[in-house]
Amino acid sequence: MGRILDDSQPLQGRTRSLIGNVVDAMISPLLERRLGEIPAALELADGTTLFRPAATSVATIELRDRAVLLDILARSSLGFGERYVDGSIRVTGDLVGLLERSNRLSAPDGRMPRVPFRHALARGYRVSRRASASNAAHHYDLGNDFYALWLDPSMNYTCAYYDAPETTLAQAQTAKMERVCSKLALRAGERVVEAGSGWGALAVHMAERHGVRVRAFNVSTAQLEYSREQAERRGVSGLIEWIHGDYREIGAGYDAFVSVGMLEALGPGDHSELGRTMGRAVGNDGRGLLHSIGRNQPYPTDPWIDRYIFPQGYAPSLAEMLSIFESSSLSVLDVENLRIHYVRTLADWLERFEGAATEIERQHDERFVRMWRLYLSAAQAAFRAGWLQLFQVKFAPGLSDRLPKRVGDDGPPGR
Amino acid sequence: MGRILDDSQPLQGRTRSLIGNVVDAMISPLLERRLGEIPAALELADGTTLFRPAATSVATIELRDRAVLLDILARSSLGFGERYVDGSIRVTGDLVGLLERSNRLSAPDGRMPRVPFRHALARGYRVSRRASASNAAHHYDLGNDFYALWLDPSMNYTCAYYDAPETTLAQAQTAKMERVCSKLALRAGERVVEAGSGWGALAVHMAERHGVRVRAFNVSTAQLEYSREQAERRGVSGLIEWIHGDYREIGAGYDAFVSVGMLEALGPGDHSELGRTMGRAVGNDGRGLLHSIGRNQPYPTDPWIDRYIFPQGYAPSLAEMLSIFESSSLSVLDVENLRIHYVRTLADWLERFEGAATEIERQHDERFVRMWRLYLSAAQAAFRAGWLQLFQVKFAPGLSDRLPKRVGDDGPPGR
Repeated sequence: MGRILDDSQPLQGRTRSLIGNVVDAMISPLLERRLGEIPAALELADGTTLFRPAATSVATIELRDRAVLLDILARSSLGFGERYVDGSIRVTGDLVGLLERSNRLSAPDGRMPRVPFRHALARGYRVSRRASASNAAHHYDLGNDFYALWLDPSMNYTCAYYDAPETTLAQAQTAKMERVCSKLALRAGERVVEAGSGWGALAVHMAERHGVRVRAFNVSTAQLEYSREQAERRGVSGLIEWIHGDYREIGAGYDAFVSVGMLEALGPGDHSELGRTMGRAVGNDGRGLLHSIGRNQPYPTDPWIDRYIFPQGYAPSLAEMLSIFESSSLSVLDVENLRIHYVRTLADWLERFEGAATEIERQHDERFVRMWRLYLSAAQAAFRAGWLQLFQVKFAPGLSDRLPKRVGDDGPPGR
Repeated sequence: MGRILDDSQPLQGRTRSLIGNVVDAMISPLLERRLGEIPAALELADGTTLFRPAATSVATIELRDRAVLLDILARSSLGFGERYVDGSIRVTGDLVGLLERSNRLSAPDGRMPRVPFRHALARGYRVSRRASASNAAHHYDLGNDFYALWLDPSMNYTCAYYDAPETTLAQAQTAKMERVCSKLALRAGERVVEAGSGWGALAVHMAERHGVRVRAFNVSTAQLEYSREQAERRGVSGLIEWIHGDYREIGAGYDAFVSVGMLEALGPGDHSELGRTMGRAVGNDGRGLLHSIGRNQPYPTDPWIDRYIFPQGYAPSLAEMLSIFESSSLSVLDVENLRIHYVRTLADWLERFEGAATEIERQHDERFVRMWRLYLSAAQAAFRAGWLQLFQVKFAPGLSDRLPKRVGDDGPPGR
């Protein structure tokens, strides 16, 4: 248990106002309850120590004034996020460790906290075509140059796969793409449809290494432009058709369906339509793979992330994800949880991001750097704490017996 | 479309009674609708052909009289099952193929038919401790000698794992057990708890090959007796504690939890208690594996199977199975669907069963042989048609980062 408003600390070079004292006295029990086991010291810019943890401290949180503290207490993550971004909060030390610990304290037994009632009512929300395009523009049209500064050279913006401790980000992203292809057991000449193709890395990889014909759907103009250039440069533009459109426009007649990191942009109310789309795409004999951030229990998106990073995004629980398959005629063949791999992916991104922070600040501004630092740190913390998971689900039509082998195994024999 | 009451067939050596003609006229549209695409001829014992399929026939169904037909039409699978068992129905040809086709016709798009309303109301049913023991006795206390006649030598009564086309049943059962152990990444000296240990094959395998200490829970007296003998004979009785008790009695303090083919005996209302049991067993650092028959969509147990084979049994959909994990603090790490392997397992069992049919009839009676033939055939048909799936789910506590590797892979590195 930490010590609140520790009077044993010297009050050097500052005056404690009467109002300050009253506010401190009022918030003291709140702080005790809310910060009780947070491993960070809480200070005001004037040097006042508001809270000092009993155990090892991983960070120091400096607040511009008491109003910032009240904002955090009143608006929780939204208050913290906005004040961090506007510079009213400065964290020195281990921001990721601090956020991870904070997550773990809210779910001490490893189970997500109970879903707020308000959220339960909103669980079936859908994201329209128009909203889908504008949400994508909000995040992905920030400039390909910006993402190129900290993603791997092939511009994968999804969880990588680390074979070994010494694996680099670039290797891990290639390994992830190859793993997806192996799970799908792609054969040259097959027709593959991709829903949400990002900067085109997977489509290019599939065409280049496996000789398949890809039709890639994306709603971000900036990403599609970049993708086209990449395909040209790699000499596979004849194999890939880039389509400005969302998953709902995908028709029938494919050997394989793949979607890596798009489901998170949908609302839970969109799942059954996605299921129908996937079922239509793979017909009676195809197979598919859906890769998405998920959770162990249903839980609403963090309000700061929802407002500033991924508008209307939703990471479903695995059971919620299964409604996609169960509402359709699809059979789940294989699920793999890559949570631990996302911890490393985010650590690599964050390291590269920090290395490019000066350049990013030049391209954008200080506020932008703080926003992205907080987002990448909070995401890493959430995966570390088990608040987020990463599920790769392989599926096939319910009636199909032409099942691809399990990666790394000799695999089940067909009938 | 088949031809009903085909008059082009000679009516050799029989008289058509007036009543017979009237009944035939009444049931003709019913037959047309219900049997329309069934690839089997339907005949009466007196030689009358009631129905002849348009396409290739895989079997001939001979009914003792028209009352049998009415019973099937009125009581569906319960009527068919009871009349098959009492000898009023004889099937020559491919019984499994006939049943598979019948399943597929009820779910032409590969999706299970809509769940009857009555079942939806009963979905939360639970199986008490007492019922659990008596259900187990009903099925498993039929005599170890009986099962020894057609199971593999180690008496696994669950889905095997076939590495290659030439793999035998015995090899596939050993491969399955080893696969489970690999997924759990067992290390010598660890404490493993098994819920529903059958004839003890897996417990003995884990102790013998991996040097772990096993506590095995089972509610069938006959199985426990057999298990104790096996452990003695294999010299591992010092490593295994056999406990007459059900999963609810499992306490804390294990490195691994394993249950292969027990979940199917529980009601959907028991899932959260099983989840709590598993969570308690593995604590903060263990891991576990749950292996069960499941489905692509929720569906009630066949009424004949429920009444005569597995009282109160229930094969949950994968989403329903996930409630076990989501209601607890457990993380799903890996799911593998072994449906195709169960098709082969059942084919091997059925072949061995037919080879021992004379001996089984001597031990029991003709009725018993017909009941088991129908059950094993219907089960194989259901897996072939995709009405049943087999899910192996690997899990760990939500907060644990000590994750076992994925079998056959280099696996995710720890943090």
